[in-house]
Amino acid sequence: MAGIVLSDRQRLDWLRLIRSESVGPRTFRSLMNRFGGAAAALDALPDLARQAGRTVRLSTLAEAEREVEALRRIGGRLIAMGEPDYPRVLQAIDTAPPLLAVLGRPEVLSRPCAALVGSRNASAAGAKFTGRLARDLGEAGFVVVSGLARGIDTAAHEASLATGTIAVLAGGLDEVYPPQNIPLLQRLLAEGAAISEMPLGLAPRGRDFPRRNRLVSGLSLGTVVVEAARKSGSLITARFANEQGRLVFAVPGSPLDPRAEGGNHLIREGAILCAEASHVVEALAPLIEEDRSYLLPPSLVRDGAGEDSAQALWDELDLPGIEAAPVAPVPVPERVTDSIDVRSLVLQLLGTTPIALDDLVRASGRSARDISMTLLDLELGNLIRRHPGGLLSRIEA
Amino acid sequence: MAGIVLSDRQRLDWLRLIRSESVGPRTFRSLMNRFGGAAAALDALPDLARQAGRTVRLSTLAEAEREVEALRRIGGRLIAMGEPDYPRVLQAIDTAPPLLAVLGRPEVLSRPCAALVGSRNASAAGAKFTGRLARDLGEAGFVVVSGLARGIDTAAHEASLATGTIAVLAGGLDEVYPPQNIPLLQRLLAEGAAISEMPLGLAPRGRDFPRRNRLVSGLSLGTVVVEAARKSGSLITARFANEQGRLVFAVPGSPLDPRAEGGNHLIREGAILCAEASHVVEALAPLIEEDRSYLLPPSLVRDGAGEDSAQALWDELDLPGIEAAPVAPVPVPERVTDSIDVRSLVLQLLGTTPIALDDLVRASGRSARDISMTLLDLELGNLIRRHPGGLLSRIEA
Repeated sequence: MAGIVLSDRQRLDWLRLIRSESVGPRTFRSLMNRFGGAAAALDALPDLARQAGRTVRLSTLAEAEREVEALRRIGGRLIAMGEPDYPRVLQAIDTAPPLLAVLGRPEVLSRPCAALVGSRNASAAGAKFTGRLARDLGEAGFVVVSGLARGIDTAAHEASLATGTIAVLAGGLDEVYPPQNIPLLQRLLAEGAAISEMPLGLAPRGRDFPRRNRLVSGLSLGTVVVEAARKSGSLITARFANEQGRLVFAVPGSPLDPRAEGGNHLIREGAILCAEASHVVEALAPLIEEDRSYLLPPSLVRDGAGEDSAQALWDELDLPGIEAAPVAPVPVPERVTDSIDVRSLVLQLLGTTPIALDDLVRASGRSARDISMTLLDLELGNLIRRHPGGLLSRIEA
Repeated sequence: MAGIVLSDRQRLDWLRLIRSESVGPRTFRSLMNRFGGAAAALDALPDLARQAGRTVRLSTLAEAEREVEALRRIGGRLIAMGEPDYPRVLQAIDTAPPLLAVLGRPEVLSRPCAALVGSRNASAAGAKFTGRLARDLGEAGFVVVSGLARGIDTAAHEASLATGTIAVLAGGLDEVYPPQNIPLLQRLLAEGAAISEMPLGLAPRGRDFPRRNRLVSGLSLGTVVVEAARKSGSLITARFANEQGRLVFAVPGSPLDPRAEGGNHLIREGAILCAEASHVVEALAPLIEEDRSYLLPPSLVRDGAGEDSAQALWDELDLPGIEAAPVAPVPVPERVTDSIDVRSLVLQLLGTTPIALDDLVRASGRSARDISMTLLDLELGNLIRRHPGGLLSRIEA
């Protein structure tokens, strides 16, 4: 597949930028759009922070070099958004990571994927059904994506070892959770891959799991929820899939079985009932046939590197549905901006009725940059929701 | 509730007409529309048959008197369409029986009903869930309708004895199937009712069960399928409910459980997933509030009897969606009409693409009466399907 390839130095700059304090995928994109490249953004960031009355800790070149080298030693590498191995389906989501750390076979990332997620405390029947579904999906040509957790995730990976499976980790690639699944991870690398957006050495924290779930759904044309209680991480994955415009499937179960509550609820909300692999295959097949190459415009199909092509990449990636934060003139705040204050302010201004980002910025009296830097955190913290057309609302507790 | 009341003699004539050979609910309606009343139709029927080269055995007055008397002796009575106790929701279906034999409390027929149907070989969990659902529906004010079969039907009736339940029998009211459920039937009469369109003494034949199922769904604002294999009578009931414009609910189950196949399939086809009674109640509640009195036009809200009011009743009942067979000039067939020939001809002319009745009659070269008399049989034999707008198609085997 065609695409740009970053130079080693560019890759290190991208890594420094995304590993710097307060920089997530959305802010990374804003900064790239504004400054034309990662190196320029790194140069500008300390001044930007100072102007906002803050300091920001930049990741150093030495730290970035150490991460790349450590990853190389365990057989992994970093793939940048827009590069040939970067999965185009993932690239289409709003919060696609600029860099993915990958172990195993990166080529599986470009095959059609279906996510299988569910309860850690799976029933024997749920695990059995998951195995059958994963095997059938694998035989139908799909790569099975899951989160390497106990229960359903484990059954999904195990049944698709031969056909290719992707484990998306919540922490660094060397911080496998749960540790009992380290042997499973090693086995799946033969025909599949493990990926993470997190630095090596980072043990996953509670909040990293829902954040990771957006990548499980984002890699996949559809997400199947197999057994899930009413409040569970699998439902978060399903919600991400829905917001990303992907198909959501749920496996039904007896209303007397608490592990079926989540799936039955999803079906009532519009998820496709999945009782066998063909229900997934027939719904996803037309999506594979679609030419998704629009995600990487022809002008970028070249080998050129350098800041210009990176700038072009980011400009071109601002496609409908992939909304970049608005670029305002460099703001000169009238008072010290405390990030906790901005969070509270945004939460106070948002209600359950969706409003436009512009209106939010105007109502806040803060800069568009301050507001947009706050939104991803709130979104991943499950406190706000994005709607089509760039509208935002608060999620009631 | 207002309505007309038949005289004793009219009731006997209606009974003779519906019990005569080849006269089903649809033909009954055609004959009433054509001749203005049951007595006139009985007078005309032998000639009509002779003109068609056939004979028709009419039910005699003595037979009708015996049936009414036998019904009276077991505590039952006949309720005619349009009478105050005839359920208006049932009256709205295409093949509503002109007369219903009723035991128990006829007033439950006019309360909002929900049907609960499912497998005779129910699982313990299925029976338990059915009991809970029936009890909750009863407490929410619904009368539970079912077919008195073993398994799910039995659980549904038992759990709604106190709040009111209706058993719809496939044979005569004195031919309870299965006989083990005679005690259950007797208990449910205290607060509920048993009904049948069939004559006393008729032991139900195989084909009477699917025919009966249209009354289970037809009495009810919605039908809930609890446990059903892929091919089962419950799915026929669901299909009738759908064709009657009623809501269909299905209880999901594990894809590993064959008893869940029918329900899961229905949900994929658009049935509402029911995991608790509130899912039924919230969907049906708005339908109760609708003023359904249009089913019985104000001009008929009077006590008058006589052929004129019956004629008016039938004329007025030809409302949109309640299609009467077309009334053609008295046909003079050019050759002997064999009813088996007409069946074959109709089946040959119909394909899977729906066509209008008029076009079918024209293509057949037969009279509209011959064709329409054949259609109900084919429909109940599950060989043809009616579509909105009076279109017809064949069901592929």
